[in-house]
Amino acid sequence: MSILVVGSVAFDSVETPFGKEDNILGGSATYFSTSASFFTDVQLVAVVGEDFPQEHVDFLGSRNIDLRGLSRVSGKTFHWKGKYGYDLNEAQTLETHLNVFADFKPRIPEEYSSADYLFLANIDPELQMEVLNQVTTPRIVACDTMNFWISSKRNALEKVLERVDIFIINEGEARQLSGEANLVKAARKILAMGAKTLIIKRGEYGVLMFSGSSIFAAPAYPLEEVFDPTGAGDTFAGGFMGYLANTGDASEKGIRQAIIFGSVMASFNVEDFSLNRLKRLNYKEIEERYRELKSMTHFIGIP
Amino acid sequence: MSILVVGSVAFDSVETPFGKEDNILGGSATYFSTSASFFTDVQLVAVVGEDFPQEHVDFLGSRNIDLRGLSRVSGKTFHWKGKYGYDLNEAQTLETHLNVFADFKPRIPEEYSSADYLFLANIDPELQMEVLNQVTTPRIVACDTMNFWISSKRNALEKVLERVDIFIINEGEARQLSGEANLVKAARKILAMGAKTLIIKRGEYGVLMFSGSSIFAAPAYPLEEVFDPTGAGDTFAGGFMGYLANTGDASEKGIRQAIIFGSVMASFNVEDFSLNRLKRLNYKEIEERYRELKSMTHFIGIP
Repeated sequence: MSILVVGSVAFDSVETPFGKEDNILGGSATYFSTSASFFTDVQLVAVVGEDFPQEHVDFLGSRNIDLRGLSRVSGKTFHWKGKYGYDLNEAQTLETHLNVFADFKPRIPEEYSSADYLFLANIDPELQMEVLNQVTTPRIVACDTMNFWISSKRNALEKVLERVDIFIINEGEARQLSGEANLVKAARKILAMGAKTLIIKRGEYGVLMFSGSSIFAAPAYPLEEVFDPTGAGDTFAGGFMGYLANTGDASEKGIRQAIIFGSVMASFNVEDFSLNRLKRLNYKEIEERYRELKSMTHFIGIP
Repeated sequence: MSILVVGSVAFDSVETPFGKEDNILGGSATYFSTSASFFTDVQLVAVVGEDFPQEHVDFLGSRNIDLRGLSRVSGKTFHWKGKYGYDLNEAQTLETHLNVFADFKPRIPEEYSSADYLFLANIDPELQMEVLNQVTTPRIVACDTMNFWISSKRNALEKVLERVDIFIINEGEARQLSGEANLVKAARKILAMGAKTLIIKRGEYGVLMFSGSSIFAAPAYPLEEVFDPTGAGDTFAGGFMGYLANTGDASEKGIRQAIIFGSVMASFNVEDFSLNRLKRLNYKEIEERYRELKSMTHFIGIP
């Protein structure tokens, strides 16, 4: 089954302790859809400016991503500039130029409106709601958000959460949204807002999933070379949703497997700038790393 | 088989966002031996002052800990005073009064010198070496250290590491000792110093174990109430070594299980000040939490 993603397609300028790249391909919807495309068909809704090169469009097309929802308007493409220190868990935003993204009104093409899987990437929760209103009967809706929306548009965000199945945020956002320092307490408060499943991303420490009374703890794949963490969260979400859509299995068992595939995808993505690593990735490598994570986490139970 | 531990028995004064306690029982050897005593016999070598109350000695005795190596000398007992913020991963040391610990020269009682398992808690590496020289043929030696010794006595520490089987430190110490921000690189450099197995503690994020080319990632048990993290690392080490000594199985499989038992013990310990939670803990609860960690980390492999 196919996934619809609504988010940003952008240029990033990124500096890490290991290098510096300007105006490289980025954006939440870009990372998400490329990652998901390893597992299933993806339909993308986003906006770019006149400066967005055909080369990037061609790349997304080569991943079989349906681009009928990618509109090109006059003006410049969204541009994010950020920097990471040796603690690669947190980016420092240097500049944000919304450009054409400032007036983004996601219009879901008729052909997309019956999507079974929907991912609302990190955009204004009011826009997330507009998308929800245009997609008729999604089977699974997942969404992301960020500190900026939690503080500036909490009410709109809470309304979105009432209609979401899976909420995917990072540790700091979970603490901010709940007002709880303890993650177990934070998770309980957030689940009460609506989503059935909460996935908390903890960067190099992995992921915690809360669902009903169940908790799943997945480590991140331990990497020797982390080059650029940009897009890791969206790449995780893409692998996660992609696998769910591929199997149609949203049971606890299926969600746990999807989390591991998401973690694997994120682990590849951070090995290079932009989507460079995903561009040269194949499915065999994905499966191999999944198996490695399985063996890295295995221990014998007791009777 | 029994374990010999050499470390501190101390008074702690601890402040956390949830409360404040003065002059409570603490010390690395105290936490370690109490935790290990749930699994095996423990022999303790440490020093206390005249102010150390019989009540604490009686408690340790009630855990069947062999106290022939606990010497009482004139002067005051080691006293540590520290504080934690909402980020419970790191303590801020407010005061350290070494007192009788300043002149501590560990003398291993004749009856202890053939110990099979030896844990060198966080003390001056020169003293750790003196202990090593007094224990004839230990099967497994594990040790801990801290930032202070890494910067002030690196050579002595490196000599100790050449004779150690299992090195248990926290994330920050691993980075400091190796000069590498990346933990996988850090682990490789540290393993080259001698220990066959390196266990890196990451507080609420769990543990990474490196051994040869194998990596094991274990999450911490997600707790809703973390009251006081003091002693978590030593309680982990006690559960870990205790289980190893109990089974005699130091294979990769046995070490992984021991890490989970260590994590379980640490998760109980942080639920209350001092050793209060361990004092009212029973083995059934330990096994139950082990099973919970097993189910929290389980996911289906792929063919």
